[in-house]
Amino acid sequence: MIEIIGPLAHTAANRGNSDRSATGNPAGKTAPLQKQLIERLQQAILGGRLPAGSLLPSSRLLAAEMGVSRNTVVIAYEHLAAVGYVVADKKGTRVTALSSRAARAEPPARPAAPKVAYAARVGEFKATRTYMDGALPLTPGTPALDRFPLAAWRRALERSMERALPLALGYGTPAGEPALRDAIAAHLRMARGVRCEGSQVIITEGAQEALNLCVRLFTNPGDVAWIEDPGYRGAKAAFRQGDVRVQPIPVDEEGMCVPPGAWAHPPKLIYTSPAHQYPTGAVLSVARRLELIAEARRCGAWVIEDDYDGEFRYSGEPIASMQGLVDDAPVLYVGSFSKTMFPALRIGFVVLPPPIAAHAEVALYEMLRGGHRLEQLALAHFMEGGEFGRHLGRMRRLYRERQQALREALTEHFAASEILGGDCGMHLTLRLSAGIDDDTLTERAFARGLAPRPLSSFALEQRAGSNGLVIGYGNTAAEQLTPAVRVLAELAAGIEKPRRRRA
Amino acid sequence: MIEIIGPLAHTAANRGNSDRSATGNPAGKTAPLQKQLIERLQQAILGGRLPAGSLLPSSRLLAAEMGVSRNTVVIAYEHLAAVGYVVADKKGTRVTALSSRAARAEPPARPAAPKVAYAARVGEFKATRTYMDGALPLTPGTPALDRFPLAAWRRALERSMERALPLALGYGTPAGEPALRDAIAAHLRMARGVRCEGSQVIITEGAQEALNLCVRLFTNPGDVAWIEDPGYRGAKAAFRQGDVRVQPIPVDEEGMCVPPGAWAHPPKLIYTSPAHQYPTGAVLSVARRLELIAEARRCGAWVIEDDYDGEFRYSGEPIASMQGLVDDAPVLYVGSFSKTMFPALRIGFVVLPPPIAAHAEVALYEMLRGGHRLEQLALAHFMEGGEFGRHLGRMRRLYRERQQALREALTEHFAASEILGGDCGMHLTLRLSAGIDDDTLTERAFARGLAPRPLSSFALEQRAGSNGLVIGYGNTAAEQLTPAVRVLAELAAGIEKPRRRRA
Repeated sequence: MIEIIGPLAHTAANRGNSDRSATGNPAGKTAPLQKQLIERLQQAILGGRLPAGSLLPSSRLLAAEMGVSRNTVVIAYEHLAAVGYVVADKKGTRVTALSSRAARAEPPARPAAPKVAYAARVGEFKATRTYMDGALPLTPGTPALDRFPLAAWRRALERSMERALPLALGYGTPAGEPALRDAIAAHLRMARGVRCEGSQVIITEGAQEALNLCVRLFTNPGDVAWIEDPGYRGAKAAFRQGDVRVQPIPVDEEGMCVPPGAWAHPPKLIYTSPAHQYPTGAVLSVARRLELIAEARRCGAWVIEDDYDGEFRYSGEPIASMQGLVDDAPVLYVGSFSKTMFPALRIGFVVLPPPIAAHAEVALYEMLRGGHRLEQLALAHFMEGGEFGRHLGRMRRLYRERQQALREALTEHFAASEILGGDCGMHLTLRLSAGIDDDTLTERAFARGLAPRPLSSFALEQRAGSNGLVIGYGNTAAEQLTPAVRVLAELAAGIEKPRRRRA
Repeated sequence: MIEIIGPLAHTAANRGNSDRSATGNPAGKTAPLQKQLIERLQQAILGGRLPAGSLLPSSRLLAAEMGVSRNTVVIAYEHLAAVGYVVADKKGTRVTALSSRAARAEPPARPAAPKVAYAARVGEFKATRTYMDGALPLTPGTPALDRFPLAAWRRALERSMERALPLALGYGTPAGEPALRDAIAAHLRMARGVRCEGSQVIITEGAQEALNLCVRLFTNPGDVAWIEDPGYRGAKAAFRQGDVRVQPIPVDEEGMCVPPGAWAHPPKLIYTSPAHQYPTGAVLSVARRLELIAEARRCGAWVIEDDYDGEFRYSGEPIASMQGLVDDAPVLYVGSFSKTMFPALRIGFVVLPPPIAAHAEVALYEMLRGGHRLEQLALAHFMEGGEFGRHLGRMRRLYRERQQALREALTEHFAASEILGGDCGMHLTLRLSAGIDDDTLTERAFARGLAPRPLSSFALEQRAGSNGLVIGYGNTAAEQLTPAVRVLAELAAGIEKPRRRRA
């Protein structure tokens, strides 16, 4: 046999632990003799060097030939029998009829370039530059990570560990920890005018999974969803993943603007960000809110209200949610802690009407597994103890200051450009003249260590006025903003094409 | 106005902070006067008591009438104007044409019972008793939570906090932290014979999201997936969520047994648990592994190899993965840390072939958000430092001991019943005679504080021999197992119907 399978590698290390593999340590760093023997025999069988029907030597003979203990060979033969490489009977141990099948399983000798049939929905995703590195100044959507109250958060985590372990290591309910659901409901009632109890709040992996859940609950393939244009790409991705057709709805200074007659072909879902449209910053007017609610109710559609930064309003009273505007609004209210706490926490939620929430909980047991229980319990404690509210208050003051600094810098350096966005959130949007291509400008800004995003990347259909920059100030100190905007202005001046003069 | 909107509630508290609401603390516990005023005016407008076109009093007059500062009224009017309740011009502040729309948005006076159109895929989920409380003895799939090395894990978490904060609070790459992807690849190469680099490993929210990802990447609505029957319900749920039709494939003692001729109508995905079929415990034979690989390659299908407890094998060498059996196997290897670490960690992964992984990373930026970075970094450290391997070794010894105790107790108390399951995993499956209904037995066991699961709940189509119990020993001490099995035997005896004697 040694000429077929080759000699084994005897070393001091595996001599010492050659029997350990049988006692539960098969992942040791030096391959034990038994493991080597099994692998060699498998390779010889799969490679056809030990063809179907071959009789293997007795364990005593092979042990002597390979210089291992007889027990090592016995265990190796048992293993090979368990997975079907060999069969043992009274006449001895024989190779099964694998070899011909093995040959069929091998890839063709000259493998063709792999043609992979991806899902249609995946083919639609194109590679785009990703600005996920929230460390760069001007990144939209990243909060002030260096101002997060880490010490208080670690205390909350410690406390949940002390109280809930080891039980909270196990599976939780897919809808989330009851304490957190209650804490979120209490906060939303008070701060956002949402009408809800904890039982209506479903905890999700960030807002993105909340959108996916809405799609899964209410749509069938081929259904239509309306989405703001320009708008949040994540919503489009959630709909496409659910094989839902996306219909762009334009946005003006009063927010999502449904064209006359559109309701004749009603959608199943309507995605909107009424408190602060992403990225234009428009506030959806009450007239339009009421119309969306009334029409959605009439035709059995659901409005997904993404309140992604409704917590951060800097002047006047916060603009209350659509969900709480009228009784029994057909609204699915989506939020997350990515901006109010930190993105990597990945805790979001959706508030469902009571009968829907009850039905969804049943489906959720099949669709999701509960987990991240310590983080959820810590967040509940963080909210109940008032730390969350205090952090929000501090961040509101900080972002207001930063927004003002950004607005002043933009007014100075881009005097001819319109600034979109209200007294809310953590970004401003700058419209650029057609001569300054926003993709080019963003590329060059990126090379200078700045990460605003091109407004055109938010457009679903090309529309006039979609050339611009979405500029975040959440993670950028006020004193950094003026020099950063100066760099943008220099770069823009280098790109701008002179307008054609009239002939 | 006071007769329309009513007097405001002046208290010592809101007298004191009536101006704080303008400085970023709108969620205070006593409603400030300004907030009250805004809400009263909104209600009067929405309710039609201030109809469209009404001229509101000047801020000076209203301030005097309501007993508030003029500034409070000015800010309230500005807020109402911002969201479109009123418009201000030279003649004063006027209610917009909302009231008629508001009436349309109100729900009908006698609301009919809500008829909700759920997605077809959601209608298929039925309420089942959920055994998610892993604290009960005999729960399948829950590891020994009380034996998890919490102190070492907390040290790993602390270390990742010290090193990676605050940056790791931000968004990560959706495919997961590179350090963890590399650590998993190294472990899988060594322990499971998987052929992979870290770039092929995509981190997911547990194995369930890994299955969802496979469905999203490779299927279109209406495609067919094969699934073991009896089998893992989570796989069925993942396929149905993706609108994929599920075709059950029977299982025998050599694992998934594809009927002759089935390949004439090939599926897009094939779900199998080859190392330890869930729940029968069968090991997929090498002959069948090779056949699955060869046929899947031929017809462009993908095999999803769920290696859910392949790490826990108690005799002989571990049975290597299908993924590594031949070159370029068309296999998507899925695993998770729910059993090797703890369920609430919610870290799973899928190993994709290199070109697929590269393509998927692009799509992932649209489909997922990265996060849970501290936990991922801590796990990478836990693996690299050898803690993970040591924990696995300890758990293998513990589970082997528990399995032996369970097997002995079952042999004694259920002498007539067949025990399924090899030297692997953390459950054994007991086949029951048709006279002992497994649903009834499980219900009664649950009332006695025991949580085995009925084997029939794993069946996709009703087949003979699907009556039995799936009994977990992962979270149950050896000395608890004998008394628990005695309880099961008593309950079974109380249910059993005498077999009909032949006439």
